[in-house]
Amino acid sequence: MKSNLGARIVAEFLGTAFLVAAVVGSGIMAERLASGNAALALLANTIATGAALVALILTFGPISGAHLNPIVSVADAMEGGLAWAETLPYVAAQIFGGVCGTIAAHAMFGLPLVTLSRHVRSGPAQIFSEFIASFGLLCVIWGCSRSRSNVVPFAVGSYITAAYWFTSSTSFANPAVTIARCLSDTFAGIRPADVPLFVVAQFAGGIAATFLFRWLVPNLPSRAKDVLVRHGAEL
Amino acid sequence: MKSNLGARIVAEFLGTAFLVAAVVGSGIMAERLASGNAALALLANTIATGAALVALILTFGPISGAHLNPIVSVADAMEGGLAWAETLPYVAAQIFGGVCGTIAAHAMFGLPLVTLSRHVRSGPAQIFSEFIASFGLLCVIWGCSRSRSNVVPFAVGSYITAAYWFTSSTSFANPAVTIARCLSDTFAGIRPADVPLFVVAQFAGGIAATFLFRWLVPNLPSRAKDVLVRHGAEL
Amino acid sequence: MKSNLGARIVAEFLGTAFLVAAVVGSGIMAERLASGNAALALLANTIATGAALVALILTFGPISGAHLNPIVSVADAMEGGLAWAETLPYVAAQIFGGVCGTIAAHAMFGLPLVTLSRHVRSGPAQIFSEFIASFGLLCVIWGCSRSRSNVVPFAVGSYITAAYWFTSSTSFANPAVTIARCLSDTFAGIRPADVPLFVVAQFAGGIAATFLFRWLVPNLPSRAKDVLVRHGAEL
Amino acid sequence: MKSNLGARIVAEFLGTAFLVAAVVGSGIMAERLASGNAALALLANTIATGAALVALILTFGPISGAHLNPIVSVADAMEGGLAWAETLPYVAAQIFGGVCGTIAAHAMFGLPLVTLSRHVRSGPAQIFSEFIASFGLLCVIWGCSRSRSNVVPFAVGSYITAAYWFTSSTSFANPAVTIARCLSDTFAGIRPADVPLFVVAQFAGGIAATFLFRWLVPNLPSRAKDVLVRHGAEL
Repeated sequence: MKSNLGARIVAEFLGTAFLVAAVVGSGIMAERLASGNAALALLANTIATGAALVALILTFGPISGAHLNPIVSVADAMEGGLAWAETLPYVAAQIFGGVCGTIAAHAMFGLPLVTLSRHVRSGPAQIFSEFIASFGLLCVIWGCSRSRSNVVPFAVGSYITAAYWFTSSTSFANPAVTIARCLSDTFAGIRPADVPLFVVAQFAGGIAATFLFRWLVPNLPSRAKDVLVRHGAEL
Repeated sequence: MKSNLGARIVAEFLGTAFLVAAVVGSGIMAERLASGNAALALLANTIATGAALVALILTFGPISGAHLNPIVSVADAMEGGLAWAETLPYVAAQIFGGVCGTIAAHAMFGLPLVTLSRHVRSGPAQIFSEFIASFGLLCVIWGCSRSRSNVVPFAVGSYITAAYWFTSSTSFANPAVTIARCLSDTFAGIRPADVPLFVVAQFAGGIAATFLFRWLVPNLPSRAKDVLVRHGAEL
Repeated sequence: MKSNLGARIVAEFLGTAFLVAAVVGSGIMAERLASGNAALALLANTIATGAALVALILTFGPISGAHLNPIVSVADAMEGGLAWAETLPYVAAQIFGGVCGTIAAHAMFGLPLVTLSRHVRSGPAQIFSEFIASFGLLCVIWGCSRSRSNVVPFAVGSYITAAYWFTSSTSFANPAVTIARCLSDTFAGIRPADVPLFVVAQFAGGIAATFLFRWLVPNLPSRAKDVLVRHGAEL
Repeated sequence: MKSNLGARIVAEFLGTAFLVAAVVGSGIMAERLASGNAALALLANTIATGAALVALILTFGPISGAHLNPIVSVADAMEGGLAWAETLPYVAAQIFGGVCGTIAAHAMFGLPLVTLSRHVRSGPAQIFSEFIASFGLLCVIWGCSRSRSNVVPFAVGSYITAAYWFTSSTSFANPAVTIARCLSDTFAGIRPADVPLFVVAQFAGGIAATFLFRWLVPNLPSRAKDVLVRHGAEL
């Protein structure tokens, strides 16, 4: 039995809001405390983000699938797991949730609720990083969904923990999160002008991985509908 | 078969005592060793707390449900998982356990057994942080209990690991722990005068999440009685 | 079907050797690299030890139960899980394994193979810490074994990760490891003169927890034989 | 039903590429940010590598077994899990994947795509470290595969997290990764001249562990074919 669309949309909204609050908030806290040591700040930011992903996917997965990421929703729609008509509401909820997450993080740290980031993130190395980061993320999702969907929270949390460090962009790998982070002139921010190329690279990487797994695991689509994106109460 | 109330109360007492000992003790150790680097001290404090939660919920969950937190016991009673008559003993055991945890931590580090904290934690940003932190914690608990209660220890440990960093209050999210921490004039302390507003915000957040999940997952209450709060030996 | 005693003894030997090599070796590496920051050194030491415990209990648990600790073997014998006649070989293998672990760690870092530690660890605060640390460790073991023995590796690894920080002694909680660490004049060492009181406190804590759980979970002993200490190949 | 060899080879290629990209990339990022604190750089490198292993073995395990390591493929062939005729393609894919991983990491950080490392890693202490590290790794793999193959990702990730710190070589324990790392004159590099002895020690340690487990768990080989190396779609 599927949860109704309203509940699933609220789950995507809440999950993405908490994810962005974790990314932005922990960045603020880390930068405040780290006495200028960027490695220590990023390590705290990484651990908070990875742990948040584990908790949030465990929490909201059974309701909405816990996509929390437009690439995942679009890829899932490509493979027949999510109806295309539901994809737009999913993505809208993610983007709106992400923005609210930034606002909540700012409120929790007594900052102005919205500030445009001046953090430059550009150049081919970072764009390529976003392609690879998103390619890898969707490999992880398609790869794990086939065997044991209950490990997806740990696989995704672990993957992003690693990817924060092995990409020069610190692996945004999520258009909703990218948009939300351009509204925060803090550690985790990204200059609005740099958002579009990040988003293009993210979708390119995610879709490439989806096509690859169509070939790598030919029976993936049909099973994904049942196993990966487990909406509803029947778990 | 339920464990008898006595065993469950002892489990809540011990679990909360160890939780607070971990929070307060690791704060003392971290501050002693960190040479003034607050990010490093908080990182150690975070990792110790998150790991302690995983171990303690795994250990005491099968006996008492491992609430270790008055918000969780009250929310569980609201949803029919815990009898109201048992809620007061649960909460009393948690508060008494927390205080004993502080005392034990001080004894383990050769400090006076009780010292009132002078650590100011106040202002709307921190109060809002406690609301959000507790709202998220109860989302995690209700969300995971529905699908797979065996992941609750990992979900809660991961959530608190993240929340230490994404809130300006470092996410107390637990009235028993908050009371216990006001008796420690160390890294993890909180000024007694700041406790009441923290506790109010924590209950407000936790109860809001409980109401939300009533709507989000309508069949939650009845199932929670069996699945989330697994008292006793039948596991 | 049980593994034969020879295989189980080798498993206890190897597991304890790797555990001590991880504790001592990571201490050497951490101190060499940490530029005098003791919090950073202990954090690396902690993460290495906790991770080693997860891996080693997963690896050797199915063969010998992966006690790796004389307190655990004695407590298990008290509760009927291990024959008393097999307890002495278990403990001997653990002690001998621990010593070999120290030697291996020294060899891996090009140090003299055995050096008596001059690291003073004494005083009532540290002795009380060892009592509490060992009490908690056995609570975790008895608590988890009842419900889901497959989580023991994660529970023990998480517990020790926390206990390194919430005790002033950094939670040795293991007589075999304590003896092995007195043979290493490095970060993780302990002065030989301080070993006896540590060991006494460790056994006292562990046995107290074992008695407590007899009352807390009355049906523990009989089930432990089957579930906690899973020797042999039938898993 | 087994995946066809082509898909499995691609999985080994991709998995090893991502593993090396994580090792090399996180080393670059860590060194850039760590302000000369080598312990902090290695800690970030460790966490990224351990997390990457968890994610990658979860992702590619169901397709190819996620060996990602020539020692594992050879040991698996010794025990009848992998046909010898398939071992060469596996190893070739791992080596080629590793090299591509180094190139990708360099591209993601805007560095020349290949640079020969000048990082000296030699001497008996480091060679012995590689022997022990690889011996332990294969113990973990054979030990876990017998009981619960679904914990292999967590056991291997945890083991390498620990081994980075308890060996003076930082535990390469993988010939394909060793070769790939000699092409990177960065934090994680190894001088090409030091590669051969590392590789010899790695194979020696891995094969020693494989022989030991033949005796320790006599029924391992036949079961490994079904349980450890789960190729294909039938999971």
